[in-house]
Amino acid sequence: MPGGLSTRGAAVSARRGDAEAARAVRAPAAPRAAAASDADDDRGDFVQSLARGLAVIRAFDAEHTALTLSDAARRAGVSRAAARRLLLTLVELGYAEFDARLFRLRPKVLELGFSYLHGTGLWGAAQPVMVELVERLHESCSAAVLDGDDIVYVARVPTRTRIMSITLGLGSRLPAHLTSMGRVLLAALPGAELDRRLAALGTIASRTERTLTDIDALRRAIAKVRTQGFALLDQELEPGLRSVAVPVHGPGGSVIAALNVGTHASRVTMEDLKGRVLPALKETAQAVSRAMGGAAG
Amino acid sequence: MPGGLSTRGAAVSARRGDAEAARAVRAPAAPRAAAASDADDDRGDFVQSLARGLAVIRAFDAEHTALTLSDAARRAGVSRAAARRLLLTLVELGYAEFDARLFRLRPKVLELGFSYLHGTGLWGAAQPVMVELVERLHESCSAAVLDGDDIVYVARVPTRTRIMSITLGLGSRLPAHLTSMGRVLLAALPGAELDRRLAALGTIASRTERTLTDIDALRRAIAKVRTQGFALLDQELEPGLRSVAVPVHGPGGSVIAALNVGTHASRVTMEDLKGRVLPALKETAQAVSRAMGGAAG
Repeated sequence: MPGGLSTRGAAVSARRGDAEAARAVRAPAAPRAAAASDADDDRGDFVQSLARGLAVIRAFDAEHTALTLSDAARRAGVSRAAARRLLLTLVELGYAEFDARLFRLRPKVLELGFSYLHGTGLWGAAQPVMVELVERLHESCSAAVLDGDDIVYVARVPTRTRIMSITLGLGSRLPAHLTSMGRVLLAALPGAELDRRLAALGTIASRTERTLTDIDALRRAIAKVRTQGFALLDQELEPGLRSVAVPVHGPGGSVIAALNVGTHASRVTMEDLKGRVLPALKETAQAVSRAMGGAAG
Repeated sequence: MPGGLSTRGAAVSARRGDAEAARAVRAPAAPRAAAASDADDDRGDFVQSLARGLAVIRAFDAEHTALTLSDAARRAGVSRAAARRLLLTLVELGYAEFDARLFRLRPKVLELGFSYLHGTGLWGAAQPVMVELVERLHESCSAAVLDGDDIVYVARVPTRTRIMSITLGLGSRLPAHLTSMGRVLLAALPGAELDRRLAALGTIASRTERTLTDIDALRRAIAKVRTQGFALLDQELEPGLRSVAVPVHGPGGSVIAALNVGTHASRVTMEDLKGRVLPALKETAQAVSRAMGGAAG
């Protein structure tokens, strides 16, 4: 999604409207769900009811914490009758609750996300040492993995100082090529795979006057990240936002995640980011790599 | 679950065996899923395929990050044919991947959990001020909500010093009556509801020699929490673990969550916990309450 902020799972800024949020929610499952009738018309190996049920869970977000049956149906792209059966099933299983015509998710839904989060071991390995780094630097620290063309936040220790117009949380997505963590993760891909992905990006929309919109310039920036072992980004994603990222290594030395520190340009110069923040971040990444069974990158 | 640790979604300690983990995973959905054939034999408003699909997602955990079709089927309590269709559906939707006979979850699964987490607004409101508290005290801080008889962790800023034998993460559960946050949340319930829950607890298994196993003693302890506005726990859940918890208030002054600091008994005395930690924790809870639109509790 060149130029598009995807913040599913994050509290959303005022500049993102409801319509856009609804599109983001519906995007993954709607084509199939919308085309289908109420019957379980599974085609081949695709289980329609599961796809629709997950779309109903995703119909809830920071701006839609309580939904009527009709709203849930509309946002999930399923019929009202289907939404009713899916929501009642979620209620019976303890994933949702129903009160005064409104459905809400229950904390048990967290157990679905955490089947992944704790499965990787990354949260447990990274969060405590990230807390130490934040105690030292008083700047926010995050960890992310690559998922398609996006990075997905898997650990985050935010400070009170907001440095971005959107609130990032666990599970938030950002386009990889526009972020320091994304460039670290892209730099770790095999050359042919990186070329394929860069070619598929098409046109890169400008986010700030500093955004690298030229594919060749981006390719060179990523090559530099590969050589030097870290990525520095100066207000390419958002004015005022500077960040530095380094890789986290897993068994066999493969890059399994990236760690970053994000700061505000008014507070931290690029020299400071490289001279003071980067060495501390590298130490933190080495501790996480060791905990994950990787070489101390 | 009196006396039983439920740590779904948490990295699990060595003392919890595979069999127990498998039971924990299967517990919620198995009765229906196991009884059903492969067909979508939905009864009434219950959508079997959705229940089974969620059970398949939960078949993955810290100790089972990659599953064969047979293992996934066995752990989810569904037939191999059903597991195959459900997993292929998850792969097509981007929630899972398949490689060399093994299925793994993908980061997109996080978006399900975070439909809830970011919906409440608690994570975004609590995490940054919790980080400040941890910077100040160098002790782990957590936030939890009540879900049935359990507390569920919804935010956590762990320090590197492990204070419990199990690793707690977002989505982890513990029996409410055995934890300081749980007692704060139970103290906020209407009297009749609290009585009903205490009566339903039955026998409380002793976790340490200090565990309050007498229901009347527990009732008095919770009444004290209600009066004084905080809960102090001294090694009732686990030897060496001391914690203090206070409520977080939402709109209208209702208690919407609890915040705690957990420390090791060898490092922090009960006097210290009450005299030094509690005032700092109260300030943090007030900041979170304000951010959540509640009175400064």
